[in-house]
Amino acid sequence: MQRVTKEKKSHNGVPLSGFCPRFHRAVELVGRRWTGAVIRSLLSGSRRFNEIAEQVPGLSDRLLAARLRELEEAGIVRRDVECGPPVRVAYTLTEAGTELDGTMRALATWAERWMPSNPRAKKRA
Amino acid sequence: MQRVTKEKKSHNGVPLSGFCPRFHRAVELVGRRWTGAVIRSLLSGSRRFNEIAEQVPGLSDRLLAARLRELEEAGIVRRDVECGPPVRVAYTLTEAGTELDGTMRALATWAERWMPSNPRAKKRA
Repeated sequence: MQRVTKEKKSHNGVPLSGFCPRFHRAVELVGRRWTGAVIRSLLSGSRRFNEIAEQVPGLSDRLLAARLRELEEAGIVRRDVECGPPVRVAYTLTEAGTELDGTMRALATWAERWMPSNPRAKKRA
Repeated sequence: MQRVTKEKKSHNGVPLSGFCPRFHRAVELVGRRWTGAVIRSLLSGSRRFNEIAEQVPGLSDRLLAARLRELEEAGIVRRDVECGPPVRVAYTLTEAGTELDGTMRALATWAERWMPSNPRAKKRA
């Protein structure tokens, strides 16, 4: 049985304690390996596959393709094919994707303050 | 060679395009399986292990222990032992953890709007 715990509502009405399946799926979608970096790359505008790949060091083409497909399925990224020749494919955030901007900025600000630049460094808190 | 791409600065000075290792580690830490749900549970206050476990359906004790240890190492969660008997352990967000509130709220608001309640449902964007 799931215990009912006290709920704290934010000013916009989204309760933050308690378990929320939507929130749970969202945080794990965005936080999936490389996904945050891909979304971040697209927040400044449409990009071709190679442009994203160049921008995210360490991300293989295979994984980038997989992440883009997942984001497309989740309705966060749109894949546009420009008829050629040459055929060109561009990836763009949908409205849902663009609205992740606030979350990403909040996390970027947090990371600036709290994430050590050297991951092996001692924790700061 | 990493190409330099155009940077867009937010009003608080955090560039959102380009690759940032700190942001990258932050998004993957927070988005790790179950971690978001654990942080969310702690945002409303200290909790004992069993209280978190009860609040997050599907999360095993083994994984909860692993996630709490990671969050402790990252300086996001503090583990307090109250001398007994009985000895009691409570988990509390540190200042760094508490400051994830804005990110979590922004994502919760996003999820309310854009995450289908049924994950098999058609995407909405």
